[in-house]
Amino acid sequence: MDVINIAEKFSLFSDYFSPRIIGELNGQQVKAGKLKGEFIWHSHDNEDELFLVIKGSLKIEFRDKTVTIKEGEFIIVPKGVEHKPVADDEVHVLLFEPASTLNTGNIDNEFTKSALQKL
Amino acid sequence: MDVINIAEKFSLFSDYFSPRIIGELNGQQVKAGKLKGEFIWHSHDNEDELFLVIKGSLKIEFRDKTVTIKEGEFIIVPKGVEHKPVADDEVHVLLFEPASTLNTGNIDNEFTKSALQKL
Repeated sequence: MDVINIAEKFSLFSDYFSPRIIGELNGQQVKAGKLKGEFIWHSHDNEDELFLVIKGSLKIEFRDKTVTIKEGEFIIVPKGVEHKPVADDEVHVLLFEPASTLNTGNIDNEFTKSALQKL
Repeated sequence: MDVINIAEKFSLFSDYFSPRIIGELNGQQVKAGKLKGEFIWHSHDNEDELFLVIKGSLKIEFRDKTVTIKEGEFIIVPKGVEHKPVADDEVHVLLFEPASTLNTGNIDNEFTKSALQKL
């Protein structure tokens, strides 16, 4: 039962679009992710996904609009909703989602990370 | 699918030990709570509970130790573990836990809030 310092966890890795697991509870995981550039369009059939921005400004494109999530803000993307995260500059996000969630959802390509590292 | 500004949600209420629901996903809830003073000893039979400190410094007493969680830090209290939150000064926390979680866990007393407000 450790106290987790979020900034310290972010200091331990530098690669983009490769979230680390920093907490687990109730079948859910807390992940720390660094994003820069454009991710891919995808959706999650069975999982809602929360993006909490710790640093920077994250755009998420939806098919009908684009939203910007700033530091201290979060959004919940419901299951089944196609989305595409875009980070013009480096963004640090916490993700809260079921342990079953694959980063690229219904898409399997070079961005797919099927075994995340625990920090 | 709104962008939630955490500070703005905290500005909407002022009472202590009465968390508000500010997000729901996958059967879990995100709650915003203001704490000041000593809460009660309790545990949750079936729910792990995450405390993420947004402002201030939160102490949580366990039967064998006391930990301090500062701004930008979190702790996950596993189900069944007795704990007592103590806030010497006002603390703002986000809670992540199953929707079934009662704030006082296995205890029913004047601190118990069975129907939380959604903000």
